[in-house]
Order: sequence, then structure tokens, then C-alpha cells
Amino acid sequence: MTALNELTASEAARRIAAGEITSEALVRACLERIEARDADVAAWVVVDPEYALEQARVLDAGPVSGPLHGIPVGFKDVIDTADLPTRYGSPIYEGFVPEADAACVALTRAAGGVVLGKTVTTEFAGRHPGPTANPHNPAHTPGGSSSGSAAAVADFQVPLAMGTQTAGSMIRPSAYCGVYGLKPTFGLFSFAGVHDLAETFDTLGVMGRSLDDIALFRAVLMAIDAVPLEAAESPPRIGFCRTPLWDEADKATHDHLEDAAARLARAGATVTDLDLPSDFNDLLTVTWRIIVFEMARALAHEKYAHPDGVSGKAHSMIVDGEATPLETYLDDMRLVERLRSLIHELVDGTDIILTPSAVGEAHVGHSDTGPVTFNFLWHVMNMPALNIPAFTGPLGLPMGAQLVACRFDDDALLRHAVWVDRHIRS
Amino acid sequence: MTALNELTASEAARRIAAGEITSEALVRACLERIEARDADVAAWVVVDPEYALEQARVLDAGPVSGPLHGIPVGFKDVIDTADLPTRYGSPIYEGFVPEADAACVALTRAAGGVVLGKTVTTEFAGRHPGPTANPHNPAHTPGGSSSGSAAAVADFQVPLAMGTQTAGSMIRPSAYCGVYGLKPTFGLFSFAGVHDLAETFDTLGVMGRSLDDIALFRAVLMAIDAVPLEAAESPPRIGFCRTPLWDEADKATHDHLEDAAARLARAGATVTDLDLPSDFNDLLTVTWRIIVFEMARALAHEKYAHPDGVSGKAHSMIVDGEATPLETYLDDMRLVERLRSLIHELVDGTDIILTPSAVGEAHVGHSDTGPVTFNFLWHVMNMPALNIPAFTGPLGLPMGAQLVACRFDDDALLRHAVWVDRHIRS
Repeated sequence: MTALNELTASEAARRIAAGEITSEALVRACLERIEARDADVAAWVVVDPEYALEQARVLDAGPVSGPLHGIPVGFKDVIDTADLPTRYGSPIYEGFVPEADAACVALTRAAGGVVLGKTVTTEFAGRHPGPTANPHNPAHTPGGSSSGSAAAVADFQVPLAMGTQTAGSMIRPSAYCGVYGLKPTFGLFSFAGVHDLAETFDTLGVMGRSLDDIALFRAVLMAIDAVPLEAAESPPRIGFCRTPLWDEADKATHDHLEDAAARLARAGATVTDLDLPSDFNDLLTVTWRIIVFEMARALAHEKYAHPDGVSGKAHSMIVDGEATPLETYLDDMRLVERLRSLIHELVDGTDIILTPSAVGEAHVGHSDTGPVTFNFLWHVMNMPALNIPAFTGPLGLPMGAQLVACRFDDDALLRHAVWVDRHIRS
Repeated sequence: MTALNELTASEAARRIAAGEITSEALVRACLERIEARDADVAAWVVVDPEYALEQARVLDAGPVSGPLHGIPVGFKDVIDTADLPTRYGSPIYEGFVPEADAACVALTRAAGGVVLGKTVTTEFAGRHPGPTANPHNPAHTPGGSSSGSAAAVADFQVPLAMGTQTAGSMIRPSAYCGVYGLKPTFGLFSFAGVHDLAETFDTLGVMGRSLDDIALFRAVLMAIDAVPLEAAESPPRIGFCRTPLWDEADKATHDHLEDAAARLARAGATVTDLDLPSDFNDLLTVTWRIIVFEMARALAHEKYAHPDGVSGKAHSMIVDGEATPLETYLDDMRLVERLRSLIHELVDGTDIILTPSAVGEAHVGHSDTGPVTFNFLWHVMNMPALNIPAFTGPLGLPMGAQLVACRFDDDALLRHAVWVDRHIRS
């Protein structure tokens, strides 16, 4: 029998609604798992067991209140919670408790979710890492900036968690820890009540251990009806995109992705190579320039009121942003606009893009959370992206495949992902 | 001699830097004007005289700290201030004091600005009005949602103020009250620390009594060097756009705009009619659908945790947003994307667009703050827009001309506006 903390959210919600298990028992199982593993994984900034159990007992005492009734959820600690401290990964906000829930927290509660706690984030979801380790091998990074959310979901400490992505902070940790992670089309999950980093790119996302769970949590956050996720009726037309940075991926990534493309074709998908024109060659440089320019403005309060509380990594990005001329930034933004049109022309006739989630397995060490090599491009294009925990690397760590769709086609992305998920593994 | 509170920010900053006047004297003059006029105009939610004077005294005692050294500024009360209450126009937040300054407040302080107080906003910058009256005739609306900012600047209570626009909330009150108002290209002023309403459109803007002041404050908020605003070298190529809703404007608006277009042509501008294709005909409906869909998500905390604190107007918009199918919203967003490309093709070869700022003078009454008829289109296109207080209407109230430029061409918009401002009046 599966331990309660190992249930998917969908299965746990079904059992709670059927009266087979209680939310309290589920929350308790998650709390016990956290207690057993926290010294190794350190996925959480704040967990308040009594507060979580009290939410569960209240839900257990009432009728089924929504599709997440009784399900514990972890929130990346850049997301405001009205009754738990919110630190934004920064000593500046030590002990701070927001006045209001972020919109995504309020929507989770309204659907019956239990706020289990806040998960470790890098500082302001930037580059200065937190203490979290990869649950598959604590010597390795969990990825970031949504480090704690990915590690906690992967380690069966919570079935669902939210993260954010400004360049690669959802997909990469999902791949490194081996969970499903969806970063929707830009803007589809309200960012109200979430700390800003670089507003042109800041995006919320969800992590879970099944596609059904991703679809369920997405529906809650979009405030739409939660309906069972069904596979697309026919195999997808897949554009296999190695991207201009293919050579930066390791051999395991190359092999897994090439094998997967061949396997999906054998299973019935139409797989064609998607080669990007040279217009995209400078996009990584452009992406970082936009991010640091915007960070230098969005973090103005922290920079001026608490300069000693800003990490060296964030400080140096802010300095870079201050040194970036406005005209450079505007030209970069104009380029991004042009590429957003171009990419939709290029992928016309394909349903989804298949591309790596990361350059390889999670690396050893915790001083950084890994490169955005295969994440930034799709992210900057505002396209929805999904990590499928499809492979295992030579070190025994999880590796992912990334699926991407056109802007606003999140629904189709998930339905095609069901088909891909069934056929991608060897 | 001009009373201190009637100085523009640029002139006051020059005099303070030259040691001719003190910030304290300037702030005191503004406070006295507020005291004399507040019963009639009601532009402020919070003014703390001692706190404002203390900031001024500290600045007076030190060296010139930035381009706004000693200049009082008003902030619309959807903008967080760490040491003044922030109510978001809602009883839900009575007495709330944020932990941190919004980025725009921090940037203002860093430039030497004095936070004079918080100006009246409609509830969450939506449609439920506050108590502010038009300073030119208190029986009339000041416009909204940036009601207090427009009224306070127009009434010489403060030289500069910030507002926000989600459809027409900067340009319309600027026109109704007779001030310059700039709503920049979407995203150029960091929205960090400002309450969200409909994130696809939420935009900060600045109001002042001269174009120099608009350029000065814009530079501070963009964290770029403040350089004197100079007119473009040659007269602009102007696209005169009556828009598909021209018939909703009154005769005074028609006459003033037609006269202005002719006058600018005589002064040397190339003026051509810009006719929009039928693609834009449904955009007002689309705009409201997107706004209510997003409000229903962004205001989730208020909706669920404080349902009795939400006004009837906001509640009914939230209900509309909940009833809007996701696919409708996504189709609307796809249309907006397509039109954003199309509009740039249509205006190719023009420097700026000339179009009304409002349907007419400010109407009598305070139950609503006026229609978005001539604002929403340019706003949804993410294009920078500027109100020039160019005309006087038949009731003796101010009327505006709106100038619009391509996305990211804010700088050119301001430089062309200098030329237009010199020639647009009869």
C-alpha cells in the first residue's frame, strides 16, 4: 500500500472526497516525511505543523470544498502568505508576515488546499542559492530558483508546490529533481502578491508527480473547472529543437533526446527537426541584459533601504543593470517582440516542441543552481513549457525532456504531453 | 512672484539646488495649499505634514542628492509606501502599512524626492470612485482611477504625482484636470510594490504641470540620467486618428481636435489621417473581458478573505470575470497580440498619433469617473501615451489632446510632444 505522502494529489483528493482518508492523516504523513528528511534535503523555509494540521481538521470537518480539498501544497517563499512568514530568500525580510495572501495562495485555499509551508527559494528567485539539496543525492544541486518546491515534491514531502521562473527556474529544478513542472504562458497565473525580479519574464508555475496533478492544480490557479486530463486524440506533430546551444548539453542529454525523438516517431508522432535561424543566436545575452536592467529597478527598495542585506550575486547583477544603457534595453525588448512573432511562424504546423530541459544531470555542489541554457529561449518567447521526468542519467539522477507549445496553447500542451509521457521512456 | 506651490518640479529643483529656496518652504507651501483646498478637492487619502517636513529638513541639511532633491511627490494609493498607510482604495486595507516601498517610491526617494502623501484612487484602481472632485469645478468628476493625483497636481497641491492606468486611468483624469500625464510603454516603470488589477494592462504613469517635469520624473523612475528635454529637430509626421469611436466624442472634442490637426499642419507637421481597419472594432469589448477575467484572479484574496469589503462595482466585474470562459479569454489575448503587430505596421511612417484624450470635458457627478473610449485602444497596444492639456471646453473645464507613439519610443514621444505643445493651442 502506498504511503499517504506518496499519493499524487489527484489520488489523495479522490480518497479524501470518498471519505477513505482524512486530510489530517495526509498532512501528518507529509509532516513526518519532512521531519525525517529535512536535515538532508532542507526544502522548507517555514513549516508550521500545528497550523497545517488545523487547516486539515477544519477541512475534514466540513463538506468537500473544491478540487484540492484537503491537499497540502508548498509555496515558494517569494509568494506572499498572510499567516506564514515570507522571506523572499533574503535576510532583509526575516520575520516578515504579509498582510494578504498572494492570488495563487487564495485560489488554492478556495479550492480546499492546505498551505503546508514555504519552500526554499534563491534570493528573490535570482541566483544566490538557498540551502536545499537534491533529494536523490544531497551532494548535488536541486536546481533553482524554485529549489525547495522541486525537492519537496520529488522527495514525497508534499504532492504539489508552486515555483516561479524568470529564465529557467521552474523547468531546470523540475528536471534535476525528477518531477513534472509546468510554466504556463506568460501571465496566465496571476502574479499578484509575488515578489518581482524582472517583470517582463516573471512567471508562476506548478510542480507535481503526475500530469493529472499538474492539470488539476493549473485549473485551480486559473479558476476554471477541473476536468480529467485526456490525451490528445492523435499523436502530435513534434518539432525536435536542439537549439543553437545543443553543444553545451552533455552526451547523456544528446543520447536521451535523440532516442526519445526516434521512439516517439516510431510510436506514431510526426517528428521533424526544428532549426532556429540566426536571429536567436544572441538571445541569451539579450535575456540577461533585460533581466539585470529590470532587477536594478524592481529591487530599488532593497538596494537603497537595505544595501547590506543584498547578496554579492544580486548586487553585481544590479550594478550590471545600472550600467546597461536604456537604448540597449529598448533595442533588446524590440528584438524580443520581433522574435515572439517569428517563433510562431517557425513552429506553424507543429503541435509541440521537444527540447532538453537542462544540459545534463544536476551537478555536484550548491554554489549555483545550474545554467538556463535550454530554458531561457522558450521562456522569453512567453511560451508554455513542461518538464517530463523521462530519463535517468549516468549518475543515477533524474533527467527531463522539455515540451513547449505556442502561447496560450497550454491546454493542448498538456493533452499532447499525456501521449508523449506514455511513449517517451525506453 | 510665483507662489512656491505653483512652481514646476524642474524650476523648484533648480532653485533648491541653487540655495534660493528650501525644500521645507516648498513642502510647507504645498501643505498649506492642501489644507486650504482639501474640503473642496479631497485629493489625498493620507498626508502626514510632520513626516513630509522632516524629510524636507533632512534633505535641506544635506548635499543635493539627485534630480528631485527636495521635491514633494504624491503617490496614488495603490502604490506601497513603507511609512505611510496604503489603503488601495478599499476598506479591507484600512490602517495597513506596507513592509517595503514600491520600486517607484524607492527610486523617487533615491533621487531626493519627498513623499508628501498618498492620493485618492478608485477601489484597487478599478471603477468604484473615491471622494475627489475636479479642482476646476467640484461638481464635476476629476476622472479616474488616478483621481487624486490628477486633481492634486492640477490644483497646485503638489508638482508631481504618480498614477496607474489599466485602460484609461492616467490619460482621462489628466485631461479632465488639465495636467500633463504620461503613461509609458507597458513595463517601463517597474510595477513592483503596486497592487495588481489586470496584470496584462496595469501600467504606472506620471503627472506634472510641464513636459520638462514629465521628462524629469520619467528619468528618475527609469533610473537613467535626467537630461533637459529638447524638442525633436523637425516637425513630426502625425497620424491623426479619430478611431472607430469618434462619434462618441462631443462637438467640442471634434472641433478642438480637427482645429489642432489643421494648426499643426500649418506649423509644419505632416498630418495624415490614420484610419484603423475593422480588426479594431471589437477591441473595447475584448479589453473589458480581459480585465474582468484577470480581476477575478488577481483579487482572489480580497474576494475570498474579505467578500464584504469588496464594492458592488468590483464584485460585479469579478462575477463577469468568473463567467468568462477560458477559451474566450485566450482568443481575446491572441487577438490583442495580433493587433499589437498590426498597429505598428499601420503607423509605420508616422512619428506620433494625435487622438482625443476623452469624449469631452469632465461630466457632472461623482458616481463614475468617465469612459475609456479614447484610451483603451492605445493602452491595450502597450503604446506610450501622453495627455497635453491643450484646450478649454464650453463649460470652462480643461480638455486634452492625446499623443501616442510606438512601443519603446517614449523618448521620441516626449521630444515630438515639445514641438506639438508649442503649436497646438490657438
